[in-house]
Amino acid sequence: MHKEGFPVVLGHEGAGIVESIGPGVTEFKPGDKVIPLFISQCRECRFCKSPKTNQCVKGWAADRYDVMALEETRLTCKGKKLLQFLGTSTFSEYTVLNQIAVAKIDPAAPLDKVCLLGCGVCTGFGAAVNTAQVEPGSTCAVFGLGAVGLAAVMGCKFAGAKRIIAVDINPEKFEKAKVFGATEFVNPKDHSRPISQVLAEMTEGGVDYSLECVGNVAVMRSALESCVKGWGVSVLVGWTDLHDFAARPIQLIAGRTWKGTLFGGFKSKDGVPEMVKAYLDRKVKLDEFITHNMTLDRVNDAIELMKHGQCIRTVLSVSQP
Amino acid sequence: MHKEGFPVVLGHEGAGIVESIGPGVTEFKPGDKVIPLFISQCRECRFCKSPKTNQCVKGWAADRYDVMALEETRLTCKGKKLLQFLGTSTFSEYTVLNQIAVAKIDPAAPLDKVCLLGCGVCTGFGAAVNTAQVEPGSTCAVFGLGAVGLAAVMGCKFAGAKRIIAVDINPEKFEKAKVFGATEFVNPKDHSRPISQVLAEMTEGGVDYSLECVGNVAVMRSALESCVKGWGVSVLVGWTDLHDFAARPIQLIAGRTWKGTLFGGFKSKDGVPEMVKAYLDRKVKLDEFITHNMTLDRVNDAIELMKHGQCIRTVLSVSQP
Ligand SMILES: NC(=O)c1ccc[n+]([C@@H]2O[C@H](COP(=O)([O-])OP(=O)(O)OC[C@H]3O[C@@H](n4cnc5c(N)ncnc54)[C@H](O)[C@@H]3O)[C@@H](O)[C@H]2O)c1
Ligand SMILES: NC(=O)c1ccc[n+]([C@@H]2O[C@H](COP(=O)([O-])OP(=O)(O)OC[C@H]3O[C@@H](n4cnc5c(N)ncnc54)[C@H](O)[C@@H]3O)[C@@H](O)[C@H]2O)c1
Ligand SMILES: [Zn+2]
Ligand SMILES: [Zn+2]
Ligand SMILES: [Zn+2]
Ligand SMILES: [Zn+2]
Repeated sequence: MHKEGFPVVLGHEGAGIVESIGPGVTEFKPGDKVIPLFISQCRECRFCKSPKTNQCVKGWAADRYDVMALEETRLTCKGKKLLQFLGTSTFSEYTVLNQIAVAKIDPAAPLDKVCLLGCGVCTGFGAAVNTAQVEPGSTCAVFGLGAVGLAAVMGCKFAGAKRIIAVDINPEKFEKAKVFGATEFVNPKDHSRPISQVLAEMTEGGVDYSLECVGNVAVMRSALESCVKGWGVSVLVGWTDLHDFAARPIQLIAGRTWKGTLFGGFKSKDGVPEMVKAYLDRKVKLDEFITHNMTLDRVNDAIELMKHGQCIRTVLSVSQP
Repeated sequence: MHKEGFPVVLGHEGAGIVESIGPGVTEFKPGDKVIPLFISQCRECRFCKSPKTNQCVKGWAADRYDVMALEETRLTCKGKKLLQFLGTSTFSEYTVLNQIAVAKIDPAAPLDKVCLLGCGVCTGFGAAVNTAQVEPGSTCAVFGLGAVGLAAVMGCKFAGAKRIIAVDINPEKFEKAKVFGATEFVNPKDHSRPISQVLAEMTEGGVDYSLECVGNVAVMRSALESCVKGWGVSVLVGWTDLHDFAARPIQLIAGRTWKGTLFGGFKSKDGVPEMVKAYLDRKVKLDEFITHNMTLDRVNDAIELMKHGQCIRTVLSVSQP
C-alpha cells in the first residue's frame, strides 16, 4: 500500500480556516485564514537560515513530519487509514497540517481565489522574479501556458521585461497569455525548424531568460538553446522524473546558466502572505487564472478538463452546502 | 583541407614580443610584451559592453577575423598556405595576431612563465573566482587536476574557500594539488559507490561549489550531483563536443545551478594583464604548474607527457638558440 501511495487524499493547492489547534501550536488560533504549504519553512534549519534557498530540510518529502505520515496518518475514512499527500491533502473538507507548513494570511483574502497561491501561481511567478531574476528591459520566453506558465509570464512582466514570448503547442492559450503580459506568441507546430532557431531569429541571437513550464525534457533543451550566449538563464519549472534533461557542453560553456525552481524560490511561510497581499493590492492577478468553479464531487471532471488543456484552473469548493 | 583544419600551426598558450605592427594598429609598438588571446575583446560589441560576459562576438570561432582565416591565412611554409589555430598559433617563432586578441602585459613579466596565462590557468582560476563566484568559508570540489583543475583549486583558495576537495583518478596529482591549496583528496577508484555520495558524506549533504575540469560528461553529472541542494553551483570547465551532458530535472529543481565557463569568464584583454600583475605580486602561482621545459622541436614529446598525465605544463621555447 505505501509503495504505491494509495489510498490517499490528493490535492495540494488550497486555502482554509483553522478549525482547531494541537498542543504546542502558538502561531495560529481557530478562525485564522490559512494556506497549506507543500514545502515547509521551519525557520531553524540551515536551508531556512540561508537567504539563498527556500528548500527547508524538514520537507514532507524528507521526513514526512514524523507523526503525520504513513502508519501515523491522521486521515481515516470509515475507520480505514488514508495517506496524506505532500503534507496537505486539500481535496477534503478537513485536513491536518504541521504548523511549519501553514501560512497565515490576511483575513480579508477571498479563499476561493487565493487558494491558487498554494502552488502553481507562486511557482511560475517566483520562477521569473526569484529564480531567473528577470531584469527590466529584458526579453523572455515562457514555454507552456498552463497556470504555471501564465504565472511566469505575469512574473516576467512584473519584473519589467520588455518582450515576453509565449510558446505553446495549443494556440488557444495565447489570448489568455496576453492578459498576463505576453507580447508575442510562437506555436512550435507552425515551424519546421527548431524553436530555438525561430526564437534566435526573433531576438538577435536568443532570449535573456527562458522558463520551461511544461515538464518535458525535450522542451527543457529547447528552452536552454533558446537563450542568448553570454548571459542567458534558463529555468526548469516543469516537473518530470521519467527522463534526463540534456544538452551539449558548449551550451553552458558559451555562458548560459541552467537553474531550477521549487515553488518559485519563495520561502513558503514568508512568501505566500506577501503574494496574498500583492493580490489584494492588485499587483498580481489571480481571478484571470480561474476558468471553472465546481464542487468537490466533480473533482474527476476538473481533472479531465486539465488533462485536455480545457481549463487553466478549476476552483473546487469542498464545503458542504 | 579546410574541413579537416590541416595543415595548421597549433598552439594557443603563449607569450611573446611584438616584432612589427600593421596599418591601423595603435595600441601596440614593436618591443611590447604580449600574450595572444584565443578569445578576443573588441570593446565594441554588445557582449564586450555587458559586464556579464567575456564572449566577444568577434571571436575567432565566429568570423575568423576575416583576413586571417582560411584562404587569407598569413602563415606559409615553403610557399604553401598553413591554417592558423584559434587565431593564435603559438607553436611558432612568429605569428600574426589581430589586435583585438592581444593583451599588452607588464614589461617585467618573464615570458616563459606568464605564457601559462594564455589559457588553462586563467580558465581554472576564473572558473572559481568569476563563474562559480566561490564565497569565503565555502566547501568546494575540483574534479580533474591538470593545469586547469589545479588553477581552479588555486582560485577556490584565493576566494577564501575553507575546504577544497581535489578529485582525480590519478593519485600522483594529489601532492601538487596540496601546493595550490587542496585540503582533501578523493580518488574515485578507491570507492565502489558514486563519488557524489562519497562527497555528500564528507560534507553533510554536498559541496557548495563543484568544478568539472576533465571534459567528461559522466564527470559533469557527478560534479552536479555532488553539490548540496538549495544553493550548490556546478561549473563545466572541461570541454567535449562528442556527447551530451545530462541529469535528472530534480537535480536543478532542488536548487542547484549548472554553469559553464570559457576562459574563466575573464574579459581577455582586461583580465590577462591583471593576472600577470597578480603573478608579479605573488598573489597567484605560475612556476608550480611548470614541470618541464623543452625546445619546440620536442613538441611531440611534450604532448605525449600530457596525454599520459606525466606533466602539468611543459613550456616550449620557440626561439632558435
Ligand atoms: N517546480 C515546481 O515547484 C512546480 C510546481 C508546480 C507545478 N510544476 C510543474 O509545472 C508544469 C506545468 O504545470 P501546469 O499546471 O501549468 O500544467 P498544464 O498542463 O496546465 O500546462 C502545460 C502547458 O504546456 C503546454 N505544452 C505541452 N507540450 C508543449 C510543448 N512541446 N511546447 C510548448 N508547450 C507545450 C500545454 O499545451 C499546456 O498549455 C508541470 O510539469 C508541473 O508538474 C512545478
Ligand atoms: N572552458 C575553457 O575555456 C577551457 C579552457 C582550457 C581547457 N579546457 C578544458 O579543460 C579540461 C582540462 O584541461 P587540462 O589541461 O587541465 O587537462 P589534463 O589532461 O592535464 O587534466 C585532466 C585531469 O583529469 C583527470 N581525470 C581524467 N578522468 C577523470 C575522472 N573520471 N575523474 C576525475 N579526474 C579525471 C586526469 O587524471 C587529469 O589529471 C580539458 O577538457 C580542456 O579541454 C577548457
Ligand atoms: Zn527549515
Ligand atoms: Zn502543484
Ligand atoms: Zn567584442
Ligand atoms: Zn587551452
